[in-house]
Amino acid sequence: SSAGDPATQDIDLAVIAGDGIGPEVVAEGLKILEAVTAGTGAKVTSTAYDLGAKRWNATGETLPDSVLDELRGHDVILLGAIGDPSVPSGVLERGILLPLRFALDHFVNLRPAKLFPGVESPLAVDRVAPEGIDFVVVREGTEGPYVGNGGALRTGTPHEIATEVSVNTRFGVERVVRAAFARAQARPRRHLTLVHKHNVLTHAGHLWRRTVDEVGAEFPDVETAYQHVDAATIFLVNDPGRFDVIVTDNLFGDIITDIAAAIAGGIGLAASGNINPTGSAPSMFEPVHGSAPDIAGQGKADPTATILSVAMLLEHLGRTDEAGRVEAAVAADLAARGREARTTSAIGDAVAARLS
Amino acid sequence: SSAGDPATQDIDLAVIAGDGIGPEVVAEGLKILEAVTAGTGAKVTSTAYDLGAKRWNATGETLPDSVLDELRGHDVILLGAIGDPSVPSGVLERGILLPLRFALDHFVNLRPAKLFPGVESPLAVDRVAPEGIDFVVVREGTEGPYVGNGGALRTGTPHEIATEVSVNTRFGVERVVRAAFARAQARPRRHLTLVHKHNVLTHAGHLWRRTVDEVGAEFPDVETAYQHVDAATIFLVNDPGRFDVIVTDNLFGDIITDIAAAIAGGIGLAASGNINPTGSAPSMFEPVHGSAPDIAGQGKADPTATILSVAMLLEHLGRTDEAGRVEAAVAADLAARGREARTTSAIGDAVAARLS
Ligand SMILES: CC(C)[C@H](C(=O)O)[C@@H](O)C(=O)O
Ligand SMILES: CC(C)[C@H](C(=O)O)[C@@H](O)C(=O)O
Repeated sequence: SSAGDPATQDIDLAVIAGDGIGPEVVAEGLKILEAVTAGTGAKVTSTAYDLGAKRWNATGETLPDSVLDELRGHDVILLGAIGDPSVPSGVLERGILLPLRFALDHFVNLRPAKLFPGVESPLAVDRVAPEGIDFVVVREGTEGPYVGNGGALRTGTPHEIATEVSVNTRFGVERVVRAAFARAQARPRRHLTLVHKHNVLTHAGHLWRRTVDEVGAEFPDVETAYQHVDAATIFLVNDPGRFDVIVTDNLFGDIITDIAAAIAGGIGLAASGNINPTGSAPSMFEPVHGSAPDIAGQGKADPTATILSVAMLLEHLGRTDEAGRVEAAVAADLAARGREARTTSAIGDAVAARLS
Repeated sequence: SSAGDPATQDIDLAVIAGDGIGPEVVAEGLKILEAVTAGTGAKVTSTAYDLGAKRWNATGETLPDSVLDELRGHDVILLGAIGDPSVPSGVLERGILLPLRFALDHFVNLRPAKLFPGVESPLAVDRVAPEGIDFVVVREGTEGPYVGNGGALRTGTPHEIATEVSVNTRFGVERVVRAAFARAQARPRRHLTLVHKHNVLTHAGHLWRRTVDEVGAEFPDVETAYQHVDAATIFLVNDPGRFDVIVTDNLFGDIITDIAAAIAGGIGLAASGNINPTGSAPSMFEPVHGSAPDIAGQGKADPTATILSVAMLLEHLGRTDEAGRVEAAVAADLAARGREARTTSAIGDAVAARLS
């Protein structure tokens, strides 16, 4: 293979295992990364970063600038999960998870929803067949109601008022819409659905709509559709086969990707990428699920979402062949799953065995 | 029956049939209202108000002040549906539907989700059984991201920025939370779930959370729970039986009530009340579905959602017995439904026949 072949390049990985089941599932993700790159000549170097509830409880730190600077130096980041009941709501989200996405400009939050053969959907069989479920949500990751641009007045009094501001820029919307169109164009169906609520959120909605219309002119072979977010949720449970690529804002994306995960077999299987397509900072891959402190340390967590996130990471690095092999190994493992529960590491071992 | 008995009072009804299938389904709703009140001595007077796409296309008017003033004079309002492709998105929503809710202070947007026997859910049977689906969403109706408090700058340029502001007041949150607790207290399970996203929307989220905690102290027999909106959607498809009463903001409520309608057999069955519990203005009852212009005028629309909205209207007027009879007639009709489609009026006739 040539010097430019991504498959022969080393991978310099930053790992944020995090809280709860994070370290357990990340260990399996790394196992798979080692297994799939073994024999390619590529060396995987992992640098662990200690961020999350333990650090906050010990030092009060969330994401120190020095850590953020170091993270920037790696090729790519693998994240487990962040969050623990010992930390007040919002502290780690607004202190670690969202700052990472914003500082590293992860404007494409990519969340595939695919119902693998052998996986049970909570939907009735006739809603899933015959098309199955195979779509991807491109969620904007750096704007919208997630910007922290709100405030409160007269807190704790009967006259309290609290606001949250959704900020949407043409720059921010256009770049994610263009990325979504490019993905749609590369898929067999070439279909893109904008999900918003432009009949109520008229200013932001019209910006999104106009941008889809205008950018769409660059992709004449991609068919577009529009759904209000409320209607989209109905289709997600009644007829998910209609979707190919969905593009939407940060908050609507948060909501519909959890529905998408649920209908495609559960949050234990849902992978995601926080992608900076410009390459100006490393992208970050993480399971959609949280830290699940109730089952942490018991080997009960399903590492499949993390393993599929590793496949997305490989794809992002241009290692398409390895990404495909990991996904195929997961698909084979899911198809062969019996009724009895396996431990976290047993699932990792089983997938790894299918790679060699 | 005594002079104070609501069942003997006349009903002075304002009717906004609206667009598309609105007039067809409203006709069946009125048929049922007549049938169930027949013989009680109560007289139903209906005054029709012509609002919607036709009026806007003809005159440019949405909701003239004079009409709003007249509407205030009635006991209660029955709405069909508003909306048509001939009108730009947002014009009728922001010109009629939302102004009605805001001007008449419909702060309790009440949306029950009940899976009636005989009705098919898109969920797999094991997700619905054994608890079934029987919860009610109390959606705030006059605040949140629906206030129209956004704007745009440099529209149409690469530097465009569009904002949407969610406004939440202690006054507005407290009154709807109290109404939700009162409903939860009156139901057998006495359980209330707050749905929000307080880990990201920290200002509004903490106002909602604190208010639920504080108002909850007045209802010690009601158990409370909290779900982030994304997680709530997962439970709605995996385990909807866990919900009893949900209280949430205007936008989250819009989204989850459409999922709720879908899992409980579809938007054709979903009723709603836009309620002003203070009585300072008439409340308004409407099916959750839209005007469905594609099937308008063909007798294909299912009037059940409107008929169930009439049941909610009766309940609101204190006519509990009649409300129960309408709901029972609908339940019987749904249980007896065969595979062959009936016309809109045939369904109305069948339900009416069960009332006499
Ligand atoms: C934890 C939270 C901040 C996060 C989000 O809202 O984006 C999560 O729900 C997700 O979807 O990754
Ligand atoms: C038509 C629209 C303005 C409305 C809303 O968003 O409230 C509708 O979706 C509803 O749920 O009643």
